[in-house]
Amino acid sequence: MLPLLEPETVAPCCPPLTERPFTAEEAERTAKMFKALGDPVRLRLFSAVASHEGAEACVCDISDVGVSQPTVSHHLKKLKEAGLLTSERRGTWVYYRVEPSVLAAMGQLLVGASAAA
Amino acid sequence: MLPLLEPETVAPCCPPLTERPFTAEEAERTAKMFKALGDPVRLRLFSAVASHEGAEACVCDISDVGVSQPTVSHHLKKLKEAGLLTSERRGTWVYYRVEPSVLAAMGQLLVGASAAA
Repeated sequence: MLPLLEPETVAPCCPPLTERPFTAEEAERTAKMFKALGDPVRLRLFSAVASHEGAEACVCDISDVGVSQPTVSHHLKKLKEAGLLTSERRGTWVYYRVEPSVLAAMGQLLVGASAAA
Repeated sequence: MLPLLEPETVAPCCPPLTERPFTAEEAERTAKMFKALGDPVRLRLFSAVASHEGAEACVCDISDVGVSQPTVSHHLKKLKEAGLLTSERRGTWVYYRVEPSVLAAMGQLLVGASAAA
């Protein structure tokens, strides 16, 4: 049996980037999320999951990014570790899901409180 | 004489990440911006500029991030190359500026069209 992957929760960590200079700790936490999206293949995969029905997808749904299935799995795990995706095993496949609250929190960092409304 | 640094313009490139899977070209362009913010020191510097008066600052304004002035300059240039900052020389100093439209475009990628309103 493979272990069940637990969904992670991600709390918005920081004020908008324009509000005041980030502290070192805030920057450490937030840079991880941006870094995860800072790779073209990961960004495509993230977009593939985010735009898939229900904002979730398994590796089996994603085949047109031009990388192997193990590479897809590797990148999806990286996105999960960065807090951008949650995952849940259902039968054979692990389904990855974009939490709208995470996108809203990142959007809020960039454009201020109005983006989260 | 040092060359005048020309402000760059940045056009929003792509639909929201949730709308449809990004193409390879869209992902290449956009990943650069996320990658630039994916380093804790650069993110602190970006936040320092973005939250400074008028959303602009020179190296002389930024001294509390714990890295040397040449390192600050290096990272500000990287942010400029990624299209996140523009720059303008005034006398002794180069001033770096956050274009609100760039933040709005990045926010729109994450949370959809409503963020750009």
